[in-house]
Amino acid sequence: MHSFRELAEIFAERFTKAHFPASPATLYEPAEYFLGIGGKRIRPVMCLMGNELFDDIHPDAYHAATAIELFHNFTLIHDDIMDAAPLRRGMETLHKKYGDNTALLAGDVMLIQAYEYINKIDSSYQKHILSLFNKTAREVCEGQQLDMDFEKQEHVGLDQYINMITLKTSVLLAASLKIGSVIGGASEGNRNHLYEFGKNLGIAFQVQDDYLDAFGDPDKFGKDVGGDIRQNKKTFLLLHALEVCSPQHKQELQYLITTNPDDKVERVLSIFKSCNVDEWANRLKEKYLATALQHLDDIAVMSSRKKPLLELSEFLIQREH
Amino acid sequence: MHSFRELAEIFAERFTKAHFPASPATLYEPAEYFLGIGGKRIRPVMCLMGNELFDDIHPDAYHAATAIELFHNFTLIHDDIMDAAPLRRGMETLHKKYGDNTALLAGDVMLIQAYEYINKIDSSYQKHILSLFNKTAREVCEGQQLDMDFEKQEHVGLDQYINMITLKTSVLLAASLKIGSVIGGASEGNRNHLYEFGKNLGIAFQVQDDYLDAFGDPDKFGKDVGGDIRQNKKTFLLLHALEVCSPQHKQELQYLITTNPDDKVERVLSIFKSCNVDEWANRLKEKYLATALQHLDDIAVMSSRKKPLLELSEFLIQREH
Repeated sequence: MHSFRELAEIFAERFTKAHFPASPATLYEPAEYFLGIGGKRIRPVMCLMGNELFDDIHPDAYHAATAIELFHNFTLIHDDIMDAAPLRRGMETLHKKYGDNTALLAGDVMLIQAYEYINKIDSSYQKHILSLFNKTAREVCEGQQLDMDFEKQEHVGLDQYINMITLKTSVLLAASLKIGSVIGGASEGNRNHLYEFGKNLGIAFQVQDDYLDAFGDPDKFGKDVGGDIRQNKKTFLLLHALEVCSPQHKQELQYLITTNPDDKVERVLSIFKSCNVDEWANRLKEKYLATALQHLDDIAVMSSRKKPLLELSEFLIQREH
Repeated sequence: MHSFRELAEIFAERFTKAHFPASPATLYEPAEYFLGIGGKRIRPVMCLMGNELFDDIHPDAYHAATAIELFHNFTLIHDDIMDAAPLRRGMETLHKKYGDNTALLAGDVMLIQAYEYINKIDSSYQKHILSLFNKTAREVCEGQQLDMDFEKQEHVGLDQYINMITLKTSVLLAASLKIGSVIGGASEGNRNHLYEFGKNLGIAFQVQDDYLDAFGDPDKFGKDVGGDIRQNKKTFLLLHALEVCSPQHKQELQYLITTNPDDKVERVLSIFKSCNVDEWANRLKEKYLATALQHLDDIAVMSSRKKPLLELSEFLIQREH
């Protein structure tokens, strides 16, 4: 058994190599550049953990984990084009550095390469894993489309937002674990509990991310606190506030969203606090985390094997009590 | 056995259905719209022909053919974005109608859906077919990148151009036939001859396309004759002319490429003719066609089974003698 951090190191070491041929360099150098930007490689590590929860790590788990990380990078490259984002992890985005067209193609070829790694795994479970991989990939695209739709939509319900977040980010975390568990020989019941663990953990993480963007300690959070508010992003906090606030607060929120006064962040935060949106968000996060941990608890393996997954949830979710 | 036209009708009938779920409509309606624009469906039909050359059509051949057609449409959607093309077959391109971002995502989801059809075929040859499919998909992306590179490059050698065209268009024709032949139970030798038949036929077709764009009868050709010349596109004709023309003609060509006089098309055509570029192009086309037909001849099946493939080559390549 390996800890979360050990698996992260093992994967990073294996992943750090060329994934594409040298030529044509105009296509593959940009693709390798983007992979070199790095990242926490959480999803592939979750695939390894899904395997090791049930059995020693099978070589196929590394192939699947690599496919998942390539897929994730494909989504980042294309999302960056769609968002016209200039930076990722402090480095130039692919389209910014090499142009939109090459970024589009490099993303395409990265998705194709992900399937080549899926093709390296044993035939006995390849169909099953390819099917889950395809379903997840479609869902991630659906989530991205819904996210773009919501930007243009005046009213977005909280349920719709949770559905979008689930598709855009949670299902890939869930599928990463489940694919690993299939390779590890888990029963169907155990696989499904693991999937639900990952899905709910992902939603809890997103609630926390929205919360920290508004209420986080700027020194600890690292990101630009209040950024979501300044950009009028639809978040858990804003959507809930619009549902529960007094008519007067709601009107003020709507005014603040459509204008950009200098004291916008403070005023929105003050409304959030007066409607107890901060406490509500913490409760919502705890609810999803509790659901996740219940599913982890329900998996029929010795509890000592679950330790790395508990470490993962502690790594991703800061508990306040 | 079915004729080329019969297979085209059978495939078109099967393919005309929804390939995506209804929701989210903002993603899948655009994807279905693009498939509805139509096309000759040559590649999937080639897959069916590759199967039927060796045995009755297996249901898996329809799955593979559908995957190939979806893949082809994915490339068209993304190519249209890269080329900023407003029209395809007289209809609005996807990005023009629904915006670049949705077109990008709809292309992505179409590629993913292609893999879902590959996942429906029998495990006994799935790995082999997926591997060829992935290799071909990567090559098509490489071809598109090289095509974009060549636009910015002053000198492009004829060999480089043939390599680009092979990757961008011929390998998919070749792979379509070969995938069908794998399903039809062909031996490796026969599969490879069929692949080479498709590859060389594709190059011959492209030489003809470049030729017709310059020398074609406007009434028969249907396209805007001289369009490649007006757009300074690097074609078989231009690259050869730049290699064989007299220094004076070469200088004039280079002047015409960098400027856009009103009589540009006539003057370029006149140089082409004086260097016998038209005759050379016809000989080149015949050379590739002959190579293709030799490979078809070398396939060890009764010659009567090859009739639909001969019909295909006659449909694609007009012979002048």
